[in-house]
Amino acid sequence: MSVTAPLGFRAAGIAAGIKKRQGPPDPANDSRDLALVVNDGPSRAAAGVFTRNRVKAAPVLWSAQVVEGGLVRAVVLNSGGANACTGPAGFQDTHATAEKVAEVLQDSAGEIVVCSTGLIGERLPMDPLLAGIDTAAAQLSRDGGVAAADAIRTTDTVSKIAFRRGEGYMVGGMAKGAGMLAPALATMLSVLTTDADLTSRELDEVLRRAVSVTFDRLDADGCMSTNDTVLLLASAASGVRPDLAEFERKVTEVCADLCRQLLVDAEGASKAIAIEVVGAASVEDAVDVGRTVSRSNLLKCALHGEDPNWGRVLSAVGTTDAEFEPDRLNVAINGIWICRGGAAGDDRSKVDLRPRDVTITIDLSAGPHSATIHTTDLTAAYVHENSAYSS
Amino acid sequence: MSVTAPLGFRAAGIAAGIKKRQGPPDPANDSRDLALVVNDGPSRAAAGVFTRNRVKAAPVLWSAQVVEGGLVRAVVLNSGGANACTGPAGFQDTHATAEKVAEVLQDSAGEIVVCSTGLIGERLPMDPLLAGIDTAAAQLSRDGGVAAADAIRTTDTVSKIAFRRGEGYMVGGMAKGAGMLAPALATMLSVLTTDADLTSRELDEVLRRAVSVTFDRLDADGCMSTNDTVLLLASAASGVRPDLAEFERKVTEVCADLCRQLLVDAEGASKAIAIEVVGAASVEDAVDVGRTVSRSNLLKCALHGEDPNWGRVLSAVGTTDAEFEPDRLNVAINGIWICRGGAAGDDRSKVDLRPRDVTITIDLSAGPHSATIHTTDLTAAYVHENSAYSS
Repeated sequence: MSVTAPLGFRAAGIAAGIKKRQGPPDPANDSRDLALVVNDGPSRAAAGVFTRNRVKAAPVLWSAQVVEGGLVRAVVLNSGGANACTGPAGFQDTHATAEKVAEVLQDSAGEIVVCSTGLIGERLPMDPLLAGIDTAAAQLSRDGGVAAADAIRTTDTVSKIAFRRGEGYMVGGMAKGAGMLAPALATMLSVLTTDADLTSRELDEVLRRAVSVTFDRLDADGCMSTNDTVLLLASAASGVRPDLAEFERKVTEVCADLCRQLLVDAEGASKAIAIEVVGAASVEDAVDVGRTVSRSNLLKCALHGEDPNWGRVLSAVGTTDAEFEPDRLNVAINGIWICRGGAAGDDRSKVDLRPRDVTITIDLSAGPHSATIHTTDLTAAYVHENSAYSS
Repeated sequence: MSVTAPLGFRAAGIAAGIKKRQGPPDPANDSRDLALVVNDGPSRAAAGVFTRNRVKAAPVLWSAQVVEGGLVRAVVLNSGGANACTGPAGFQDTHATAEKVAEVLQDSAGEIVVCSTGLIGERLPMDPLLAGIDTAAAQLSRDGGVAAADAIRTTDTVSKIAFRRGEGYMVGGMAKGAGMLAPALATMLSVLTTDADLTSRELDEVLRRAVSVTFDRLDADGCMSTNDTVLLLASAASGVRPDLAEFERKVTEVCADLCRQLLVDAEGASKAIAIEVVGAASVEDAVDVGRTVSRSNLLKCALHGEDPNWGRVLSAVGTTDAEFEPDRLNVAINGIWICRGGAAGDDRSKVDLRPRDVTITIDLSAGPHSATIHTTDLTAAYVHENSAYSS
């Protein structure tokens, strides 16, 4: 269902020949690398959230300006190249891409969002890319959402799609990203769509809140990408003005669903780890502690080895500025409170770390707030995947 | 030579049976796990720097108080257990250890520093530890420095010792630490000694400055330990009041020498990476950028795979608050400027990443300041070593 689950959207995903190949192009076997998502309206209200990395890819610089205007007719996304750190020429490539989509749709380039993902520092092959836009436009359809989700994969082993039904409207979405999931999105591209009727401002508020508790709390390897983008497009094709609180719940659910899929497919991971921080003096403290613990390579290795090494949890907590007293920290791993009052608690042999899902609960004993950060373990497979080839 | 290179110091390193063993104790084969370093004076001036982790091990809490007094008679160090996160009982164990050393030396426990390293969260086996202090005291000698350096090893494959000769005096030292080298020392223990004549205040100033440009700029895996300690003891046995600037140079050289040894022996590392940040608006900016880049798992994997992936350098630089413009960033790897003006520069195939030593130079084009951070690559061997057993 993906981005075409809501009314008013068409999509396509095709093999344009952007991804590196051995030998000549072979349309029958080459993998998809170009996606197009078109909003046929009647509304084209939109919002977007972009990477906070100060080194931003050309498509991010372009698309942030487009989204500023509040209206998006279409999104063109490519895998096979990030178009980041490519200088003024790279920006021109993005501009030309938007112009080409505008031309085939007979619309304005100022309402075309561009997203790219792949290797940093190399120019995109513009001839196949521009030709691919013609091909994709010809294949646009109401059931093209799945092909579009497939086309934006890089090292993702599966496509990520989700949808939720609201009161008379739908919210759909797709996402990619398996490596650089971090601080605040990281080479993570996601397009969400809805046929509900909302203003750009409403979409912006809903999207920011939804992202802050979902994509922003996913931290697979602590690396923040140059290309992260999350978009929310509304066609109003259902004619329904939704209840805003319910709409936000649906959008948040779709984001959370996509995040879960990203986490499970993260490069080389063998565990999906939830770091649940409770008893915090503030949500900020809870997020800070969760994020810091999620970035401890030593802890991530221990969990990979199914060793309930709570000492590595405490030593990571101790590097934060959050409010807590060391001798009031409690830690549970998969429900067993193996650290109480900053020292050894229940018998560590009771902890069963064999399941893929691991929950670490950290009680700061400092207040009523909580937050959960999702991460993965650190494995030899992660090292292999990220050292054996450029990405 | 180690800590007994300067006059006025005796040391010993013995197998007390603290490290976990299969089967009964076997003094002939069990590895050393207890070290004693004694300052016979005439001075016992001393200074120390401790972990900034807020979760501090019992020996750190104790020893920081001792060093506050400015006088240290002896240092007792054990491997085989960190005595961290062990509650009030763990603190009593540290206190009992200091009392025991004071008893055998017929001195005051208030001038005995205790250092521990090993697994967090478990109590130390006090019977063998206290008995070991008797054994160690009986073996104290002017050439015991090497045995002491051996006894503090955990996963270190070799002992780390160094010394430098000043004008009429010596500076010696030993260190251990192979895994948690980080932000500011991390399960890194080091004892430096000198027979020069200096006050505690002079030693403190010299040590802080030396550590800030050596141990503080070593960041193997971003994890900060609960037990880090660097000590500097002065016996004044040479009778020489050194030139302070020269003395600081010698101490810094010994620290840098030990750091280099720690880096080369870091768990599972196959590369020794220097991240040299130049053109920074301030030293703080340079250190911030170097440290952030040194913690990019993606970059560390790429270097392990001998892939000159400068895009991963830029994407890490972009997450800092340092002063720079993205389109004025230049990056060289092993002397080849593969990124100029934020985009691709010289041919990446010219970069030779086969040697163990790798230098990444990052030019921020924002000012005259610079700093170098030392780190390692991320390897399957690191993952194995940190997932296969508790440490």
